[in-house]
Amino acid sequence: MQTTIESRSRTVVIGDGAPFCVIGERINPTGRKAFQAQLQAGDLSQLEIDVAEQVAGGADVLDVNVGDPLADEIELMRAAVPMVQGLTDLPLCIDSSIIEALEAGLGAYEGKALVNSVTGEDERLNLILPIVARHGAAVIGLANDDEIPMEPERRLEVARKIVSVAGDHGIPPQDVVIDPLAMPVGAEPRAVTLFLETVRLIRDNLGVNMTCGASNTSFGLPGRHALGAAFLAVSQSHGLTSAIMDARARECVESVRATDFLLGQDEWGARWIAAHRAKLAAQAAQAATS
Amino acid sequence: MQTTIESRSRTVVIGDGAPFCVIGERINPTGRKAFQAQLQAGDLSQLEIDVAEQVAGGADVLDVNVGDPLADEIELMRAAVPMVQGLTDLPLCIDSSIIEALEAGLGAYEGKALVNSVTGEDERLNLILPIVARHGAAVIGLANDDEIPMEPERRLEVARKIVSVAGDHGIPPQDVVIDPLAMPVGAEPRAVTLFLETVRLIRDNLGVNMTCGASNTSFGLPGRHALGAAFLAVSQSHGLTSAIMDARARECVESVRATDFLLGQDEWGARWIAAHRAKLAAQAAQAATS
Repeated sequence: MQTTIESRSRTVVIGDGAPFCVIGERINPTGRKAFQAQLQAGDLSQLEIDVAEQVAGGADVLDVNVGDPLADEIELMRAAVPMVQGLTDLPLCIDSSIIEALEAGLGAYEGKALVNSVTGEDERLNLILPIVARHGAAVIGLANDDEIPMEPERRLEVARKIVSVAGDHGIPPQDVVIDPLAMPVGAEPRAVTLFLETVRLIRDNLGVNMTCGASNTSFGLPGRHALGAAFLAVSQSHGLTSAIMDARARECVESVRATDFLLGQDEWGARWIAAHRAKLAAQAAQAATS
Repeated sequence: MQTTIESRSRTVVIGDGAPFCVIGERINPTGRKAFQAQLQAGDLSQLEIDVAEQVAGGADVLDVNVGDPLADEIELMRAAVPMVQGLTDLPLCIDSSIIEALEAGLGAYEGKALVNSVTGEDERLNLILPIVARHGAAVIGLANDDEIPMEPERRLEVARKIVSVAGDHGIPPQDVVIDPLAMPVGAEPRAVTLFLETVRLIRDNLGVNMTCGASNTSFGLPGRHALGAAFLAVSQSHGLTSAIMDARARECVESVRATDFLLGQDEWGARWIAAHRAKLAAQAAQAATS
């Protein structure tokens, strides 16, 4: 099954043999005090740096989250979306827990966006899905409702419900991207094995595309990029087709592209080899100017 | 199913929840002209460096191959095995295509060795398995006979035959480690997907442990360590329990240890966190002396 996300001029395909979709997660004030202060002052200038870094790192889609409890998130989203679209032709993922901010972002967006996110709670489904449908967007569905189930079968049931209710709102399964919930392995040793079991269940039973917040897995641990790289490769090989991740983490992006090649989603390694040549050329250029 | 390999003082367990077994592959003259010349002159001094590097890199078992067509491999193996056992307490994998060299190595070895390797060809099985049985060793069985089958089902059949004939010679399944055959993905785009399918078939049908020459996958390609790291993580998550690999490749060893943690074979990350602390301590010591 293929999910397509579009900007004005670019279409990104998720799933069904396409390369893994890297959704750059950096445009988000969580844990960034300076950026929070800027947002509170209505200053979006940091986005220029963040967009440039995510694009340079190889992101396929950019997540845009400008949520801060002390800022006017709705106005910020309305301004951020066209600003980011002026900086890059990558499609965007409009990310907010505030429904009016999602609506403002979708209203300002040119193309077919991805919406981050809805849960399996009736109230959220009934508020968010009509907006997604009205804008012809795709949506990320988190495999939890009012609680976060640990059992893969329960997560599958929540995912099934989201796909079903989305259908009731006229959103086809290919426009629902399920998040099977990556959790910190430092807090729960079974976090990844349960995650992988959930991925396989959703792949085999629903066949929809999947994404997750990949960095959650390594939360609080040393060697986060090595853990993230291994987590992404493994998850991709069991059916994950996308991840929300910081494209500045070279080791993680390389792991995803290597796994594309290994799994036949980059036949003969054309992208892999081209990326290697570009890296060598950049190093040579840097050496020549220094 | 657990395979145990032993030196005089150390037991390494492969499989059944144990951490992935890294078999250090560096002690091998393939592609090393200087080492080849030394072996031809009967000089084994290079082993001191190679053993130290593999141990420092985190190998669990060391592969010992001193084969060179212009050297007396049998005498070299007879000398190399006690020399390596004097340098490390890691168990060894005695590696040769010459049956008399395997026999010389096993005769000189103290402990329970792993023998690398036998194929599914009747002649090789009937020559090598009696030696393995007599020495109470374990053996790597390559999933090919006189040809290298591409179809996972055919590789499974060869593996099944090896396990069966080993049983006829009194070698139990837990002492047979099957190599599902890692092949260059640069030459055959399906190499890894077929490999993974073979791994799953062998895991589900035979339940024996598995190893492979991991670096084969990235042969001839740029970015070999990143490809190797992703290949190892993915393969481990589908059932591979060991690999013959160069432990000097930090990225690859880290990927294996990260995957141990992610898959619950390093609960709470005790080994992962201890390795990180050791690395920080080593960096601090280096900074203090420089």
